[in-house]
Amino acid sequence: MRAIEIPFYDSNRQNLTLVEKTTPNVGSNQVLIKVSASPINPSDIVFLEGRYGVKKSLPVTPGFEASGRVVAVGSGPLARALLGRRVACGAKRNLDGCWAEYMVTDVNSCMPLIPSVSDEQGAMALANPLTAWGLVDLARRGGHQAIVQSGASSAVGRMILRLGQRFNMPMVHVVRRPANVALLQSMGARYVLNSNDPDFLPRLKVICRQLKASMAFDAVAGEMTGLMLKAMPRKGTLLLYGALSNKPSQFDPADPLFSKKTIAGFWLTGWLPKLSLVEKAHMALTVQRGLNNELKTTVQARLPLEQVAKGLQLYTQNMTKGKVLLIP
Amino acid sequence: MRAIEIPFYDSNRQNLTLVEKTTPNVGSNQVLIKVSASPINPSDIVFLEGRYGVKKSLPVTPGFEASGRVVAVGSGPLARALLGRRVACGAKRNLDGCWAEYMVTDVNSCMPLIPSVSDEQGAMALANPLTAWGLVDLARRGGHQAIVQSGASSAVGRMILRLGQRFNMPMVHVVRRPANVALLQSMGARYVLNSNDPDFLPRLKVICRQLKASMAFDAVAGEMTGLMLKAMPRKGTLLLYGALSNKPSQFDPADPLFSKKTIAGFWLTGWLPKLSLVEKAHMALTVQRGLNNELKTTVQARLPLEQVAKGLQLYTQNMTKGKVLLIP
Repeated sequence: MRAIEIPFYDSNRQNLTLVEKTTPNVGSNQVLIKVSASPINPSDIVFLEGRYGVKKSLPVTPGFEASGRVVAVGSGPLARALLGRRVACGAKRNLDGCWAEYMVTDVNSCMPLIPSVSDEQGAMALANPLTAWGLVDLARRGGHQAIVQSGASSAVGRMILRLGQRFNMPMVHVVRRPANVALLQSMGARYVLNSNDPDFLPRLKVICRQLKASMAFDAVAGEMTGLMLKAMPRKGTLLLYGALSNKPSQFDPADPLFSKKTIAGFWLTGWLPKLSLVEKAHMALTVQRGLNNELKTTVQARLPLEQVAKGLQLYTQNMTKGKVLLIP
Repeated sequence: MRAIEIPFYDSNRQNLTLVEKTTPNVGSNQVLIKVSASPINPSDIVFLEGRYGVKKSLPVTPGFEASGRVVAVGSGPLARALLGRRVACGAKRNLDGCWAEYMVTDVNSCMPLIPSVSDEQGAMALANPLTAWGLVDLARRGGHQAIVQSGASSAVGRMILRLGQRFNMPMVHVVRRPANVALLQSMGARYVLNSNDPDFLPRLKVICRQLKASMAFDAVAGEMTGLMLKAMPRKGTLLLYGALSNKPSQFDPADPLFSKKTIAGFWLTGWLPKLSLVEKAHMALTVQRGLNNELKTTVQARLPLEQVAKGLQLYTQNMTKGKVLLIP
C-alpha cells in the first residue's frame, strides 16, 4: 500500500516521504481500515516537529485521525461487530498513523459513523469536535458563567463559539486579525476582540469582569496566557489546550498569588480515559449529531497523499480558511 | 506618637518619612498595642512599591506584622481578655500598619504569645512561619511524596527546609549562590542545587522525578517557574508564593498541556480564612512552639524607626543574612 512516512523529526517539516509498504496485519481487538480521508491538524504539525506529547519510534506514518471502512478484523466480539462498518478512527500510540491507504487501530479508537455524517466530516470527528465539546463541558460542569477564548477563529475556536450559542453560555473571543473579527461576528458572536488593538487588554478586562468569565481556553500560549489571566476575575481558571504562537507562556505572578487564578492544561488524550463508557457513548452520539451543525469543520482543500507537502503549506499559510484533507 | 508614613507608592522606595501623629483610638473588638518590634518583610517592599495584593488609602503607616503589649481595648469580651497581654499582631487592610510606636488592630489579627517566645521572634510569628507551615501542610494533606522549592535560602525557605526534616518529607532546594548551597547543606539539607550551574535543569529533573517531587513552592517567579514545572513529574502542582525575581513567570505550555501540570498561588491572606477556629488555634500553638526551632528567624539588625531607610537598604542588600527589625 502507499503511505506517508517520516524517517526523523524535523522542526522545518521537510521530513515527509511517500513510500510503498506492506499493508499491516490486525491483532486481537484490532481492525484494518481502508482510509477515506484524514485531515492535517495542528497536533500533526507539532508531531512532525517532534514537539508533541507522544513520540513514536521511527520511521512512522503520521496522522492522528481519519474516517474509513473496516475491511478486516482481529479476534474479539467488538472487532467482529465493526466489520464492514464506516468509522471515525484515531491512531494508536504505538502504531502507524492515518496518512496511508490502510491503517490498523484498536476497536476502542473507533467510533461507528451514523449515516448523516459524511466521510469528510467523519474524518474530523475526533480531535477538534471532542476537544471543543470537552472544554465547554468542563466549563458548564464547573459552574462558570462565561468563557473567554483565544485563537477563536481556529476550527476548534469556532466550534466552541457555536457550542456557547447552543448552551447560552456568554463568550469573549480573541483573534489577531480584523478579518477574523468580522468572520466571528458574521457567525453571531457578540464579544470579539483583536489582540493587536492598542486598547485590547483594558477592554478585555472590562468585558471579562462584567460577564464573570472565570474560565479561559488558551490555544495560543506566549503572551496571550498572561493577558487572559490578567483580564479574568478573581479565582479564574485558564486551560491551555494549544500553543499556536509556539512561544513560552508568560504571566504576572501576582495573578495566581493575590487573585487565586490557576493555570492547567487540557489534552484530549488525557481527558477521554476519564469518562465512563456511558458518558463516551452519549458524547459520541451528541458529537456526531453536531457534525453538520455546531461541530462542522470547513475544508479548504482535498489532496492525494503524494501532495501532502503542498497540503501542509496551504494549511500553515491560512488555517482560518479551513482544514486540508488527505484523500488516499 | 512617632510613626513611619508613606505619602505615595514609589517603585524606588524613596517614600518613607518619620512623622508625629495622634495615637489611634480603639473601636469595638479592637485593641491598641504598644509595638515592641516589627520586621521588614519582602511583602513590605512590594507594598511600598505599590505592587502588593492590598493597596491602602494614603498616607499610611506600612508594616504588616509586629509584637507588642495590649495597652487599651475596645468593647467585646475577646478584646477585654487581651488587655495587658503580649501578642503577635497583623495590620488590618483598612488601618495603619506596624512601623509606629502604637498600632490598632482587630482581636482576630492578634495571637497571644506563650512565655517561651521572645518579643523578637514573636514579631515575626505570623507572615513567614504561617506561610511555611501552610505550604508544607498543603503538601502533606495533598499526599505529595516530596517537595521542590525555589528561593530556599530565604527565611521562609529555611523554615520549609526544617519542617521537611521534622516531617520526614524529602525536599529539593534551589538557590542562586554557592554560599547558599553551603548554608543549606550545613543545616542538613541533602538535595541543594544552584540554578546558575550549567547542568542545573537536567540534574533538577533527575532528582525531582526520582523523589517524586510532585509539589513545588516557587518564591522566585520569572524563568524559575518554568524550570521547576519542567523538572517535576507528571501531574505536578506548582504553588507560587512570591516573586523575588520581580519578573513575569515563564513556562513551556507543553507542561500543562501534555503532562497535566498545574500552576496556582498561595497567599496567607487568602488561605487563613479557610481554616476553622480549631485549626487556627492548633496552628497558633504549634507554630509558637516552633519559633525557637524549625520556625526560628535569623535577625541581622535591630534599628529604631528613624533608621528605617538604612534598614531597608541592609535587608535588600542581603536577605539571606536575616531580617531587619524595627524597634520603636
